[in-house]
Parts: sequence; structure tokens; C-alpha cells
Amino acid sequence: MVRFCDSQARWGAVSVGTMKALVYHGPGQKAWEDVPDAAIAEPTDVVVRVDTTTICGTDLHILQGDVAAVTDGRILGHEAVGTITEVGEAVKGFGVGDRVLVPAITKCGRCGYCQRGMPSHCQTVGGIGWIFGHLIDGTQAESVRVPYADTSLYAVPAGVTNEQAIFLADSLPTGYEVGVLAGQVRPGDTVAVVGTGAVGLSAILTTGLWGASRVIGIDTNKFRLEKALEFGATDVVEVGPGTVADVIALTDGLGVDVAIEAVGYPETLLTAASLVRPGGSIANIGVHGTPVELPMQDMWIQNVTLTMGLVDTVSIPTLLTMVASGRIPAEKMGTHTFTFGQIDQAYDVFKNAAANSALKVIITPA
Amino acid sequence: MVRFCDSQARWGAVSVGTMKALVYHGPGQKAWEDVPDAAIAEPTDVVVRVDTTTICGTDLHILQGDVAAVTDGRILGHEAVGTITEVGEAVKGFGVGDRVLVPAITKCGRCGYCQRGMPSHCQTVGGIGWIFGHLIDGTQAESVRVPYADTSLYAVPAGVTNEQAIFLADSLPTGYEVGVLAGQVRPGDTVAVVGTGAVGLSAILTTGLWGASRVIGIDTNKFRLEKALEFGATDVVEVGPGTVADVIALTDGLGVDVAIEAVGYPETLLTAASLVRPGGSIANIGVHGTPVELPMQDMWIQNVTLTMGLVDTVSIPTLLTMVASGRIPAEKMGTHTFTFGQIDQAYDVFKNAAANSALKVIITPA
Amino acid sequence: MVRFCDSQARWGAVSVGTMKALVYHGPGQKAWEDVPDAAIAEPTDVVVRVDTTTICGTDLHILQGDVAAVTDGRILGHEAVGTITEVGEAVKGFGVGDRVLVPAITKCGRCGYCQRGMPSHCQTVGGIGWIFGHLIDGTQAESVRVPYADTSLYAVPAGVTNEQAIFLADSLPTGYEVGVLAGQVRPGDTVAVVGTGAVGLSAILTTGLWGASRVIGIDTNKFRLEKALEFGATDVVEVGPGTVADVIALTDGLGVDVAIEAVGYPETLLTAASLVRPGGSIANIGVHGTPVELPMQDMWIQNVTLTMGLVDTVSIPTLLTMVASGRIPAEKMGTHTFTFGQIDQAYDVFKNAAANSALKVIITPA
Amino acid sequence: MVRFCDSQARWGAVSVGTMKALVYHGPGQKAWEDVPDAAIAEPTDVVVRVDTTTICGTDLHILQGDVAAVTDGRILGHEAVGTITEVGEAVKGFGVGDRVLVPAITKCGRCGYCQRGMPSHCQTVGGIGWIFGHLIDGTQAESVRVPYADTSLYAVPAGVTNEQAIFLADSLPTGYEVGVLAGQVRPGDTVAVVGTGAVGLSAILTTGLWGASRVIGIDTNKFRLEKALEFGATDVVEVGPGTVADVIALTDGLGVDVAIEAVGYPETLLTAASLVRPGGSIANIGVHGTPVELPMQDMWIQNVTLTMGLVDTVSIPTLLTMVASGRIPAEKMGTHTFTFGQIDQAYDVFKNAAANSALKVIITPA
Repeated sequence: MVRFCDSQARWGAVSVGTMKALVYHGPGQKAWEDVPDAAIAEPTDVVVRVDTTTICGTDLHILQGDVAAVTDGRILGHEAVGTITEVGEAVKGFGVGDRVLVPAITKCGRCGYCQRGMPSHCQTVGGIGWIFGHLIDGTQAESVRVPYADTSLYAVPAGVTNEQAIFLADSLPTGYEVGVLAGQVRPGDTVAVVGTGAVGLSAILTTGLWGASRVIGIDTNKFRLEKALEFGATDVVEVGPGTVADVIALTDGLGVDVAIEAVGYPETLLTAASLVRPGGSIANIGVHGTPVELPMQDMWIQNVTLTMGLVDTVSIPTLLTMVASGRIPAEKMGTHTFTFGQIDQAYDVFKNAAANSALKVIITPA
Repeated sequence: MVRFCDSQARWGAVSVGTMKALVYHGPGQKAWEDVPDAAIAEPTDVVVRVDTTTICGTDLHILQGDVAAVTDGRILGHEAVGTITEVGEAVKGFGVGDRVLVPAITKCGRCGYCQRGMPSHCQTVGGIGWIFGHLIDGTQAESVRVPYADTSLYAVPAGVTNEQAIFLADSLPTGYEVGVLAGQVRPGDTVAVVGTGAVGLSAILTTGLWGASRVIGIDTNKFRLEKALEFGATDVVEVGPGTVADVIALTDGLGVDVAIEAVGYPETLLTAASLVRPGGSIANIGVHGTPVELPMQDMWIQNVTLTMGLVDTVSIPTLLTMVASGRIPAEKMGTHTFTFGQIDQAYDVFKNAAANSALKVIITPA
Repeated sequence: MVRFCDSQARWGAVSVGTMKALVYHGPGQKAWEDVPDAAIAEPTDVVVRVDTTTICGTDLHILQGDVAAVTDGRILGHEAVGTITEVGEAVKGFGVGDRVLVPAITKCGRCGYCQRGMPSHCQTVGGIGWIFGHLIDGTQAESVRVPYADTSLYAVPAGVTNEQAIFLADSLPTGYEVGVLAGQVRPGDTVAVVGTGAVGLSAILTTGLWGASRVIGIDTNKFRLEKALEFGATDVVEVGPGTVADVIALTDGLGVDVAIEAVGYPETLLTAASLVRPGGSIANIGVHGTPVELPMQDMWIQNVTLTMGLVDTVSIPTLLTMVASGRIPAEKMGTHTFTFGQIDQAYDVFKNAAANSALKVIITPA
Repeated sequence: MVRFCDSQARWGAVSVGTMKALVYHGPGQKAWEDVPDAAIAEPTDVVVRVDTTTICGTDLHILQGDVAAVTDGRILGHEAVGTITEVGEAVKGFGVGDRVLVPAITKCGRCGYCQRGMPSHCQTVGGIGWIFGHLIDGTQAESVRVPYADTSLYAVPAGVTNEQAIFLADSLPTGYEVGVLAGQVRPGDTVAVVGTGAVGLSAILTTGLWGASRVIGIDTNKFRLEKALEFGATDVVEVGPGTVADVIALTDGLGVDVAIEAVGYPETLLTAASLVRPGGSIANIGVHGTPVELPMQDMWIQNVTLTMGLVDTVSIPTLLTMVASGRIPAEKMGTHTFTFGQIDQAYDVFKNAAANSALKVIITPA
């Protein structure tokens, strides 16, 4: 397996200036500080000036020290919309000045996983397709080097704003691919979404693309449940002792066709599992930190399917089309706006999203 | 939900003679004894004289008292090949004298589950499609009443023997549908089968239909591993401390595309889960009695799919075609033959299948 | 092949009264006249009192003498919503008084075609699933005998009116199954519909279930194009010398993903074929009367798929769900209402639908 | 659309030596003559020394002047197995000395078509993925420049010989993808292959990967029919007045599930269409030169699907795996061997393949 060797390549390149970036310095430590300018290191790279970025729940995990692969000195962030400022000589599909979406996943385009549309496990860029702010420097910076630009970047169509496109870097494709597509929502289906934070809402926002007839949002937080209705849920259920019974009562008594888990705890996954009818699907989106005891003595006979995984971001062209045509109001995800200089505040608001009536934050240069 | 009400209908029918059948009398208790003749109770019924039957692992579970729905007086068994002796007046597809396969699953043909090809959860016959030897009297008897005959029975083609067809009542479709089909084996795939008893071997015997390039049988028992090779495994691995490493070494280092679990214990399911590559499938066939602690903290990012369920037996037409054309040597499943009078011995041999070098037993009238 | 033998069975039944029905008497000849009451002939039959019926383009073909299998004396019509008045003794899923949808297709539920969800070619009822008003008496009558009731009928949910449900007997499933499903519309797709009469509009009304981003209606008639916009088309193109160029201009220059043909002439099929991009689908719904010269010298390299066929009506449960949830305004299909006594006028209006600003007619007892 | 501009790039490269190649000089004119050495023109190119090549039916069409895009001076050929001798600086997946398969289709890896696995219509390399011996110089030469090497080339595994791999450049993937995959062969299916030349035989050789139960080869030529049996057909039918009846008699009277057309004439496509059962698939592989009059008046009601198209070669990894595991004896395709110096003879033999008992020719340096 060829793993992407970032740092050496980078220092080998000629890089004279400096820029500002959010740098990780160990658990709980981050700083918006000077670093060398992002620069081309391989002929397949481009450099993108970051016009809009955001924060992901994964960034909070990293700051807690939960992701061992992220080490001191790493620039954080894996979502950006920006403008190309420099182009490697092998890059054919993009030019300087192009407005592009930098997705969370980098794609070599040639390994077996990329060829089957599953770059989440690209064997070339790192054994995993998520490398920005993880295995190489990220997007919470004035500029970012983007490897495998031709196969990874997406041009942003004229009718799509930066404030819409930014949520297609990770949140929306995650809700759509790992929730709606993996769960195989089909026209007429009843869908439950356990957890209506940013990713759960992304699933709600995109179930309509596959004709779900009923979408039930489930959460502990009233603000999020309100948002669920606004994003397209037909029903909402506040978590309580009767949650499962309440949801089953909204179906024909057998449960939902698809239960999407968008939190990442044992109890939320077990709730999702208990909502699904025989023959249905449980699509786990949540990032789990502990094992989950699955009641296989009851489940084995239910003909259910449990899916899980990292986003591939291969649905971005579809999502861009649907945003451009007005069918997905992606801009609703952005509730708060900050400048690069306010990035610490942005993290503070996002860390307590529900308390702050926040979904996702938008961060721009000025 | 209309549940099938067996006993009343039955006693309401005119039934003057008696026949022999294997009757359950509570945990550990069974007897080959006289019971009233099987008889038509509904216009959609037929009566089938049992020419060949067999024993399933589930019958052993029932005898241990593990299946609460099975109560004292129930005739056991859910697999048969036989000859129709009586036909209800609404039955159009079959006539007296037809040689038929009585599958484990009964199918009303009209509920939502039947219409989507998932009669395992037929809402009409019992909320579950498995009713023989469970919710109504079964096939380990001289004759059996078969409800919903038109939509449930299959004619046995001339080129298929009773000793082949009997294994298409449950074992082969289970390995094929719940293992190979649910696991979505595709041409070129590498497949591991954890547990090479009758059902695991059924999966091995049918992976070839979808072009698996490498099929790895895994078991603790040498006899079963020998059988695995004979049934089409390309490699076998005896269970030991290095099982996972041994299997991974047989792949490109990433694991198998599809891991089929055919035992039903936490450790076998976890073994299957640890063998599968990112993007692969874990198809659970085993009947579990306890919860399984799934390492979701490692698995969530792997883009794997876990499937489970009861057989639908809807693949029987395909399997009959393949047996008739010589591509599936179903007769290899039958290692021991008994008469009805020897049914206790048949249970004894099957209970200790591995020790007796047995796979499945064949039971005939004389 | 067992063909359904209608007349003998019927006369064998006890039937004392008479009813009114529209009877075919050879090309151009039909009469609303007295016939024996519809009656149970088989234990799997029910009799339905017709509360709402309609006329299909196929009925017009029959009246022109184009359908040889329809002979003098046949009651016309294959679409109805009604109330069950009599139930055969083998019928379990329906009872007297149930409000039901009688679909165009009859389904035995047990032949290979029915078991794979393709009752359009049910081998039991006639080699073809369309038998009402074709091989047996039809629905343009006060009552109709419905064979294979359990597997063929659908209960109409409380929230769906007769005036909505009637269009789910044939038109809407035809547009949806033979157009949208066969054409494999997927989220983000651009779809062209050639011919925006009742069936083309049905395709337009249901593409949204699969997330089409752009739906282009194409017709010669301004009324129909207006309706197309009202039914969900995003663009309309009036047929003229530049039709193909106009549609291509609405895409990225390569053509549409899916072209649905809903007329049935060589030129409309060729138009559809010329609109589709490489890798796209052409879904033919139209009933053709002559061969079509396909430009295979240009098409062979285009990786396109051409589908065609009779409706299966198996999508009715999905469509009923979507009508009930308000997502498909099926009632918009009905533009004119008549009583049974005005059935000749209904035919006259429907025969010149475009000139009369008509889509489908609704016919009720009084 | 960015079209690949070959000649300018090439002459701009430093190229001092010469090599031999088969150059097209207008209809009927070709010569094995000196040309400048193949050389790197773009950082994503490699140069491959051709160790094995072959001739395709398309090359014969080109020589007849049927392919307007091929102009005087073009080096012919689009199939090769060879050894990399030079590598562009952006190429990461391959190195000098690697033994590689050069497939008929070149894939940029980033356009919409490449990302959905349909590089046959790669918008970057030429609007079509077939560029070797068509839009750029080809493989019937001592060396060949390969653009987009990372996304287009395949490493040949140790267990696969050049004489096997060469048929995976075009013939085998064409039969498999455009015949077996497009026709959606499924386990148990009956498949007819109309025309058992090299491509039809490729379909026969690979239907087994999807578990066809019966494969019927149809041809006018006895040698080809013998080969069909040797390649895995279960039955063969020599073309005559009763062809259709003979094939239908081999099925249950309804026809085959999948009819694969591998010739390219109206009558062969119409034969395929008349063999298929309702609900089946007609997979056209043949290259047509004229329109085909399709009997839509009979076909519209049959629920059949007609597919057609250029190969994508994306199945090569699967096919390489199956050749390596011994399940596809690809070497059987090569019946005659020639050296580069005998390439004119090779064309003569291949032009009259059936008369010469030839399937495909193998051409090597010496």
C-alpha cells in the first residue's frame, strides 16, 4: 500500500511566504497561527485559497485527542469552498481562478476502491480517503494544498453560493450517502432519523430525493426537532420512555422501513434497531467510541440490514444539481457566521451547538 | 394481522383415519405415535403424503424447549418431498399425484411481504412464514396438510430425485439466500464461510452460481473441512489462534469481500466481522441465542454491511433448475438414511452430526 | 399454459338478475345494455359493484377493431374502484363492503411471472395479465367479477377518494412503472417525456418520487403542455423542426438521462431516441401499431437501453401511499365527469381528448 | 469538451529513434513501416513496449474505410500486453519494467462518465474512450504511448500469461460487459448467443460467472459451433429455417431469458429479439452499419429490454482474477500466432477467420 507522504514532499517544494492556519498542538490545544504557505508538491496538486470553511464534529473529536493519527502541528479542517491559485502541471480539469468545492474525501481515481466509487477507502492516499486535517494539512487555513485535484475537486456551478456549497463538502453527502443511500430509501418508505443534529438533518433534507412518504425526526432537543420539521420531517418525536412505541404507532404497527442513526451511542443505535420493521434497514451514520451490544437473539430472524461507514462524497455532483435546481435548500444548515479571526468563537458555538441553537457554522476570510 | 388458526380448522374437518407422526411433548420429549390423518381444512389446502423428510438444527432447538411457540402435541418438521393425495377446491396449480417440494416457508402470496418476495415474514400465515412444526403441524409424519398450496408448493422436475429435492426445502436456500444472496457475492469475489456444517456447506455449494473466485471454509472439525473442499471451497482454515491472520493472508491483505457466518455464536459472528475488508459484507445465517457485542468503535468507518434473517425459500426455482442441470450436487448433503420407524436414531445421529461424520439425514417411509 | 376459461364458468354459476354494462359488438359498435349480473364463478373470485370507472386509450383501440382477442359480446373496461358485494369461499383478504381498487392487471400470484413481480405476463390468467375487457368481461358495468381477488385487488385507504384511486388502476402505474421505473430515473436526472397526454402526464407526476432535477414535457398541443407544467414539468417544448436541438440545449449538450416515449408512433420513439445521452435510457410506453426503423448504425455505440412493456400494476401500494400522503395529486387526471347513462358522451369526449381539453374522464353510477 | 490533441503533443516531445508500426494509409492500404519512437508527451503518460498484440474486427472495418475518424498515417490497433519502458512524472501507480495490459478504452478517471464506470464515453480523452488506433496512435507497433496511464492500465498478475491477458484488452470484456452484464444474466437463466465468433464466444465463456443454467450457441458455421461447445455452451443450433423454433423448444416454450447478439446485422438482431421470452433481455454487442426495423407492434407488450454499447473494460480486474484462478481459460481464444514481421498474414487469416478455423490471432515481436 502506497501511503501518502505529506510532510517531506511539502518541505521539498519552494515555499517562501507564510499564511494563517488553525494548527493542532495536542489535546485541547489549537492556535490560529503563521505557517508556511500552501504550495504545490506533486504535479497532480492544486492550491486553493479558502473562501469558506466550516467545522465538523470530527474536528471536536480530534481536539479531544480521540484521533491518534492527528499529531502536533497538523492544520485542522476537511471542508472548504475556495478559488484555485496554483495548478500542478499534470492537472487538466481545473485552472487558476476556478471556484471549487474541496470535499472531505480525497480520491486517487485508480485504486480498486476509487474505481468502484468507494474512495472512503482509497488505498493510495492513505488507506482511507479522509486525509485533510488528519494525515495532511487541512482546510481551516487561508490556503490548502489539494492532492489528486483532477479526481477529487468539484467545480461549483454558477447558481450555487459558497454558503450552500460548503455543506456539500461533508455534512450533506454524509447524511445522504451513509443514511439515505445506504439505507436504501425507496418511494413510499417510512424513515426514522434518530438524532436531528447537522448530519441527521442532512438525511432528512435528502430523503425526499428518493420519495420517502413519511420522515420521523427523533431527538432530545426541541430546537433540533423544530429544525427537523423545517427540513422536511413529517413528524417528530421527543425522546422519552415511549419513543419506540410512539414511532411504531406512526407506522402500520410493524415499524419503519429505514432507521437512520445519526448520533453514535449504543442507545441511539439500539433505538434505531428497535424501530425497524422486518426486512428493513438500519443505516448507522454515527461515529462510535465503544462497542454496542446487539440483541442478535431477537434480530437474527428479522431480515434486517445494518450498514455503516465513512462518506465517499461521490454524490456531490447529484447534490450540486439539486441545490442548483432549488430542491435542496442547503443554506439552511448554516446558522452562524464567523471570520477566520473569530475561529475560536466559531469552535465554542459549534461545541455547544444545541444550546446555541446552532447547526453548522460558516467561516470566511473577513 | 390475520393469524393462521390451525387446530380449530383441523378438528372441524372430517378426518376418520389415523397416521403416524413425530409429536412434541415438551422439552426433551417426542414420540412417533398415532395422530388423526392430515386433512383439508381450507379450500386452498392440499394434503401431501410425505415420501422424504429430514431434520433441521431448528428441530433440535425446539426439543430443547428453546422455541416457546411450539407446544405439546405439535407434529415436528418443516421439510418434505411428497405426493399430493388430496386437493382443496380452490387449488388450481396442483393435482393429486403431483410430486412436490414442501418448503420450510408458507406463503400467502398477497401480503406486502409476499408481494416483495419476503414470505419469511408473511403477515397472513402467522406473522412469520415458518409455520410447519412451529405454528401448525409439520412434515415428520406420514402426511401433512399444506395451506396456501398454490403459492407455497413447488413441483419437482423429472430430473431431480427426492434425495436431492429434500435439501431444497430449507438448507440449500438458507445457505444461498441468507448467505450468498444477502452477502451479495459477485464474480471474482473472495468469500469466507465461518462454520462448514450443513448450512455453511450449502453456502459453499452455491457461491459458484455468482462466480466467487475463492471460497475459504473455516471450522474446528476436520470432517467438515474435508467436506468443504469437496463442496467447492478453494481453501480451508482450521480454527485456531491465527485464524483471522491465516484468512487475511489468503487475500490481498485487506480481507474477504464477503464473510458468511453459519454457526450462531458471538465468537463466530465476530470472527466473520474481523475477516471482511472495507466495503465488504457480513452475512449472518446463524441462529443466535444471546446478544453480540459488536466493536462499532472499529467497524463504523469500515463501510461494511451486516445482514441477517430467515430464509424466504423464493430461490427454490433457481436451485431446482441448477440441480436438474447438474450444477449443484444437492445429494451430497445426505450422508445417512433412515426409515420413519428409525426416526429416533435419525435424531441421535443428527444431534452429534460432526462426531458421526454426518451432514443431513434422509428419512423415508420404509 | 392454463388459459382462463371465462364464459363456461360464468354460465355455470347461479345468476338470476341482470345489470347494465357497455358491451362490444364488433368494430365501431358498442351498447350500454342489459346483461346477466356479475357472479362468483370460482372460490377465489369476488364481485365488485363499480362505483367509479374510466376509459383508457386501449378501449378506443378495441372499438376500432385493433384487438382481435376482443370479440362480440365482451363487456369493455379494465379500470374500476368499487365495493365488494360477494366473496368466494377461498378469499381471505377481503370481505363484503370493502372499498377496493380493481387494477388493469389480474395476478394469480403463483406463476413464475407473478412471483418475480411481473404479472403483466401471468401465465395462469391468460398468458397476459390484462384480461378485463379483453379475455373476460370488464369494468364498464354496474358490477364486475374479479378473479384471483386475494392477489389482485387493493384496499383503498380512507384518505384516498374514488376520484383519485381510479387513476391508479392503469394510467398512473403505467407512467410510473413503464416510464419512470423502467427508465431508471435517479436523483438529479434530466428526463424528457415525449407526449404529454394522460400517460405522459402520469410519468411527469411520478418522476419526482425518484428525484429528477429537470423534467421536460414535449407535445404538439398547447393544452397538454400547460398541463405538463401543472403536473410538475420544469420545462416544456412544443414540437417543431428544432425540438431535438431545443431539448439538448436544456441539458449540458449531451442530452437527457432518460427519455420517456408516451405516444406510440415511429417518429415519437425516434425523437425519444435522439434526445438521450450516451449511457441513458429510452423507456417506451406507447402502444405501437407498426415497426420502427431504429438507427442502430448510430445507436449501437451509445450504451443506451431501450425498454418497453405492459404495466404490472405492482406499484399500486406505493402510489396509494403517496396519494394518501398528498405527494401525488392524482385527482388532477380527471377533467370530466359522466354517469353510466352518459357513457357514450364520455367516449366521445375522451376520443378527442386534446380538442376537448380533456385528460381522463370519470364515470360513476349516477 | 476537451478533446485529446495527439499529434502536436507528440511532435513536441523529444523523440530521436524510430520503431516499426502498422500504419494506415487510406482504405485498403496499410504498411509495417518505420515511424518515430513512441514517447512521453504528457506527465500522465507512459510508454509501453508491445510484447503481444492482436487484431480486432474493428481494425478490419477501419481498413475498409468505414471509420472516418481514422486518417492516413494513424498507427492501428487497440489491444496490447507489454512492458513499461518510460513513465511520465505524474504517474504514481506504475513503474518501468511493469508488465501491463493496455485496454481498448482509455479512462481519464475524472469526467462524469469515468466516475460512473462508463469510460466508453470518457468526455476528456475524445468524447469516446476508444482512442488507440482511432484518435491517437495504436498498439500494432513496437511501442505505444499510453495516456492517462494511472487510470487506464492494469498490472498483469504473475499467474496470467501474455497469451491470456491479450484477450482481456477488448474481446473478453466486450462479451462479458456488453453481453452478459448488460443482459443481466442471473443464476438459472437460459441464454442464447447469436453468432459464436470471438466476441460471442467471449460471452459464452463468461456467462458461467453469473450461473447461467443453459447456454445456447447459434451460428451458421460448424467450426464456431464446435468451439461454442468447447467454450461452455450447453447446446448449439445451426442457423436454418427452424432456428427460432429450435431454440424455443430448448426452453419451456416461452424463449430464453437473455439473448445476446454478437454479429451486427439486422437479421441477427431480429433473431435475438424473437428468441427472448416476455420480461427478458436482448443484449446487442454487434457493430451495425444500417438501421434495423424493429417489430415494435409485437414487442411493445413483451416487457423486454434492449441494450447496446461500446465496452468499458472496467471488468478487467474481475476477469484477470478469474483467469488467474483458472476459471476462465482465456488462452483458448488464440488459435494462430504470428510475429510482427508476419502481421500482413495475421490480417489475412483473421479476415477469413471462420474459413481458417481461426478465432483470434496472437502477434508478438519475434
